[in-house]
Amino acid sequence: MSDDDILAMHLQELRRGTVVLACLQLLRTPGYGYGLLETLDARGFATDANTLYPLLRRLEKQGYLDSEWNTEEARPRKFYRTSAAGVSLAASLTADFRAIATAIDSLTEEN
Amino acid sequence: MSDDDILAMHLQELRRGTVVLACLQLLRTPGYGYGLLETLDARGFATDANTLYPLLRRLEKQGYLDSEWNTEEARPRKFYRTSAAGVSLAASLTADFRAIATAIDSLTEEN
Repeated sequence: MSDDDILAMHLQELRRGTVVLACLQLLRTPGYGYGLLETLDARGFATDANTLYPLLRRLEKQGYLDSEWNTEEARPRKFYRTSAAGVSLAASLTADFRAIATAIDSLTEEN
Repeated sequence: MSDDDILAMHLQELRRGTVVLACLQLLRTPGYGYGLLETLDARGFATDANTLYPLLRRLEKQGYLDSEWNTEEARPRKFYRTSAAGVSLAASLTADFRAIATAIDSLTEEN
């Protein structure tokens, strides 16, 4: 692996856990998978369809997202919305993320 | 999985990527694996030996940590120090983490 590959791998690891939180926050406004993919990218949580779609299905199965089919268009599309349990999970993850951010800031200040 | 298990899993995912950064920052002051484990715990980056030790070996192999054996005691112990490449990786990861933190704050402010 080149240095760039290794950096990319570590950055990806750092980002991975935040995509769940971003999805839960963004889907308080109901949305489709494809639109969410674009929004995530625009908001600094770039991910790909092969990661996002299984994640959405998993969060739905766990009860953090509700889904509904929109059959008004030629091709039915599923849209997702964060459930009450999902809102609560997002609050926990946000609090935890803030604690991590504080811990990281304290490491950085010393150096 | 219970709700608590699911929350724990998501929190762990959120934390995982930050342990690399914490190790690189903390090992600017040379240290042993065991002592680092305790410091990580005290500083809010709790991890276990089965995760940390392979991580240290991996970072060493990648050139981000230098290591040396201390043979002055009855039982030789390896101590690690962040290399110049490791300091530079830590700076990149910190910048990236700050960008993620800003992106998360912007999600939260809307809701």
